[in-house]
Amino acid sequence: MKLRTFIEHRLFSKFILAIILVNAVLIGLGTDSSIYANYESIFIATDILILAIFTIEIILKLIVYRQKFFNNGWNVFDFVIVFGSLVLYNTHLVSVLRILRVLRVLRTISIIPSLRRLTSALFMAIPAIGSVTILMGIIFYVYSVIGTSFFGDIAPEFFGNVGLSALTLFQVFTLESWASGIFRPIFTEVVWSWLYFVSFIIVSTFIILNLIVGEIVNNAQELSEHSEEESKDMQRIMKDLDELKQMIKDKEKKTEKEDEGRTG
Amino acid sequence: MKLRTFIEHRLFSKFILAIILVNAVLIGLGTDSSIYANYESIFIATDILILAIFTIEIILKLIVYRQKFFNNGWNVFDFVIVFGSLVLYNTHLVSVLRILRVLRVLRTISIIPSLRRLTSALFMAIPAIGSVTILMGIIFYVYSVIGTSFFGDIAPEFFGNVGLSALTLFQVFTLESWASGIFRPIFTEVVWSWLYFVSFIIVSTFIILNLIVGEIVNNAQELSEHSEEESKDMQRIMKDLDELKQMIKDKEKKTEKEDEGRTG
Amino acid sequence: MKLRTFIEHRLFSKFILAIILVNAVLIGLGTDSSIYANYESIFIATDILILAIFTIEIILKLIVYRQKFFNNGWNVFDFVIVFGSLVLYNTHLVSVLRILRVLRVLRTISIIPSLRRLTSALFMAIPAIGSVTILMGIIFYVYSVIGTSFFGDIAPEFFGNVGLSALTLFQVFTLESWASGIFRPIFTEVVWSWLYFVSFIIVSTFIILNLIVGEIVNNAQELSEHSEEESKDMQRIMKDLDELKQMIKDKEKKTEKEDEGRTG
Amino acid sequence: MKLRTFIEHRLFSKFILAIILVNAVLIGLGTDSSIYANYESIFIATDILILAIFTIEIILKLIVYRQKFFNNGWNVFDFVIVFGSLVLYNTHLVSVLRILRVLRVLRTISIIPSLRRLTSALFMAIPAIGSVTILMGIIFYVYSVIGTSFFGDIAPEFFGNVGLSALTLFQVFTLESWASGIFRPIFTEVVWSWLYFVSFIIVSTFIILNLIVGEIVNNAQELSEHSEEESKDMQRIMKDLDELKQMIKDKEKKTEKEDEGRTG
Repeated sequence: MKLRTFIEHRLFSKFILAIILVNAVLIGLGTDSSIYANYESIFIATDILILAIFTIEIILKLIVYRQKFFNNGWNVFDFVIVFGSLVLYNTHLVSVLRILRVLRVLRTISIIPSLRRLTSALFMAIPAIGSVTILMGIIFYVYSVIGTSFFGDIAPEFFGNVGLSALTLFQVFTLESWASGIFRPIFTEVVWSWLYFVSFIIVSTFIILNLIVGEIVNNAQELSEHSEEESKDMQRIMKDLDELKQMIKDKEKKTEKEDEGRTG
Repeated sequence: MKLRTFIEHRLFSKFILAIILVNAVLIGLGTDSSIYANYESIFIATDILILAIFTIEIILKLIVYRQKFFNNGWNVFDFVIVFGSLVLYNTHLVSVLRILRVLRVLRTISIIPSLRRLTSALFMAIPAIGSVTILMGIIFYVYSVIGTSFFGDIAPEFFGNVGLSALTLFQVFTLESWASGIFRPIFTEVVWSWLYFVSFIIVSTFIILNLIVGEIVNNAQELSEHSEEESKDMQRIMKDLDELKQMIKDKEKKTEKEDEGRTG
Repeated sequence: MKLRTFIEHRLFSKFILAIILVNAVLIGLGTDSSIYANYESIFIATDILILAIFTIEIILKLIVYRQKFFNNGWNVFDFVIVFGSLVLYNTHLVSVLRILRVLRVLRTISIIPSLRRLTSALFMAIPAIGSVTILMGIIFYVYSVIGTSFFGDIAPEFFGNVGLSALTLFQVFTLESWASGIFRPIFTEVVWSWLYFVSFIIVSTFIILNLIVGEIVNNAQELSEHSEEESKDMQRIMKDLDELKQMIKDKEKKTEKEDEGRTG
Repeated sequence: MKLRTFIEHRLFSKFILAIILVNAVLIGLGTDSSIYANYESIFIATDILILAIFTIEIILKLIVYRQKFFNNGWNVFDFVIVFGSLVLYNTHLVSVLRILRVLRVLRTISIIPSLRRLTSALFMAIPAIGSVTILMGIIFYVYSVIGTSFFGDIAPEFFGNVGLSALTLFQVFTLESWASGIFRPIFTEVVWSWLYFVSFIIVSTFIILNLIVGEIVNNAQELSEHSEEESKDMQRIMKDLDELKQMIKDKEKKTEKEDEGRTG
């Protein structure tokens, strides 16, 4: 229990944040080969120290939260980054190790609550994109195969195989040099190629624009559903009012009858 | 009837989906000429087998649904792709055949319900774009003719004829190399050309941005119409309340009169 | 009066639309110099015929509507295009004449009602853009002057004078070759130039994005005002209900008093 | 008090606006070195005059408003620009002085109320962007460090150090020549580099698109909160109606009892 209060103390997470920032600055300085060469031992020493601190932090959290630790996606992320570094430390996978070291900077997101909320909001937007992604995937695949079959020999650096074609289509999708770099050289040899590129741009842009419009309108629809509830309330109010009128009319009739009975 | 239950069975559509995916993978592998050369007979055999399965599938559906089969746009699409392949099989239109074969991958959309819904939502967004497309067409035509008349001799690869000009304007519309590739070389010879390009970019972008804003606002307006109904309900409620008050007042007066009559 | 029914007849405007389309096709064909050379006399003859028809059309409309004719912006547009052509017919301003001839295609917009509505909707969106345009103008001017002062000698083709700088900034604003073509060559000589370009892109994009978001939200606010009216209705309903309750309570008290009076 | 009415007079601010515009025109003309050389003395004289007028204006405002003067951000801006010019007038920081002189054009914004409102609306949109900016900063930093480590030797002009990498990533973010200029040359040497660029484009674009969608939806949510108030009103109305019914029913029972008592 004491361990828990220690871990969840505000100063503890501030200390970790400070370590992350120091780590970030060191990684940035380390990219300068002359600085790195001069202070190599310091860089290695602080890196080991930082990795040790992170390892202890995660072990403490594992002791306190046990299995619950892995319920949180960010904890899994922290675990993979830190223990990945430990496992690969003396191997030859230096590139992977360097990337893992840089990715530690992303731990800032898991430490600062507002960033954590922002990223979880971003992740929540992904499922809505789900079927659009599949549709885009199908369109990319169809155009990639057509591109490879027909332009593969003319422009092998762009359409040499299905993978290269998909990459080129991504470039076309971002509208970067699609005409000056890719389309116009092919156009001089294959006249109908304009149909391929123009149709791809129109279809893919149309789908993405509709996705964005749809996202905005979706939230508007939630509003609309809310006001559907309201209109149900309206219906109830009107029904209530009708009942009220009927009650008063009934009473009227009754008293009239009574009056008649009294006078009759 | 038995045939219908067979066709509408979940496993049947899953089997067709599997065939479509196998077809997709084979088409992708087939673009690699060395792989294709080694296994040519297998590629041809599986292609005939897949085409046979699709043909049987469509014949079965035609037997079950008859004329209703063609009411669905996706069925028409399937029919054209499959029977187009059959008709063109031994002709010299190899390019068309290859495209038809690739387009079979699009059948994935007609098989998976969520993609079907998504695409029909996309098609529903097209009519709203109708008059914008005509307006854009007029603007493209006017600028194409002007471009061909004035820049046709200076930059024949971009403005050689009306068709080329329209293509170049599409490139300008996507903002790809419009200045570095197209405008600046012309600008050195025709000083007022900046007016042509800048006005075209502003006008066309403005129209498309308004289309997008309009699409979003349209859906908001549907909401607004919904709440117009609500405000009608409000009016009815207020009228009801006025009636109620009047009824109670009338009764008051009546009883007062009666009381007067009784005491008088 | 007969003239009016003639002018406003459906067939009359359909005839004018047909003439406009014939005019459009001829203008398109006329850009091909070989076609034009072979049929020059026919092109000139039909052009004179079409201009005559348009002139008669406008004269008829002027007779019928008189001063009211110029109340409509599209009529003014038609008048300028047609009489501009007449006035300049035998002058040396051939370029202006050619542009006027092409602009006649835009008459399609004034003839087809749905396009007329669309364009008037577009024009209505312009005032909302008013103060944004002034702000963008100020920002363009400030950056143009700074660019001309500091990069004028390094890149005279881009920043030679204030006009060229403004044009270059428009290109930067469309993000076309801003880095590869303009910024990077300057960056090698003026280190702080990145601040100039990056700040301009961020500021100008931010303003335009806010304009678009604002346009959408504005329409949402109109909705909100609408529902403010609704909430006023709500207030009235609640007041009415309170009055009703009070009335019934008052009556209760009265009858109680009467009863007391009767029994007392 | 007399001074205040003088300063807040409409003609006073119109006079200042006129001076600002004269200043703007002169600065624009001054960029043309031949014009400047011919009329150098006039340029210097008017600049001194304009600076004197602005200095007097600010001193007057300081006398009238005292400490309150600095509560307004625009006043601080004016103060810095004018007194910055005074302080630096005879130093060697000519570049800074020239920029300060150009920035005086921005005073137009602080003088024209509609522009003032527009800019304050823009500034109000910034806090909403706050945490997105931090997130983008983290992502830029991580990608910059990775880019510098892995592509620093291959493309030193783009990824030579962390600063250059961040600048290059900004260019990639604007999608300018990201493939043709930056990615494809690196791709020939580092095969997995496509993952670096494609993931960066998707992640950064996704975040910005979500920011825009979020901004629009946020304002929609404010609307929704408004209608939540409305639904509370609804609840109150329904409660009122129930009370009313109960009151009438109670009365009914009472009179029935009385009637029973009378007849019994």
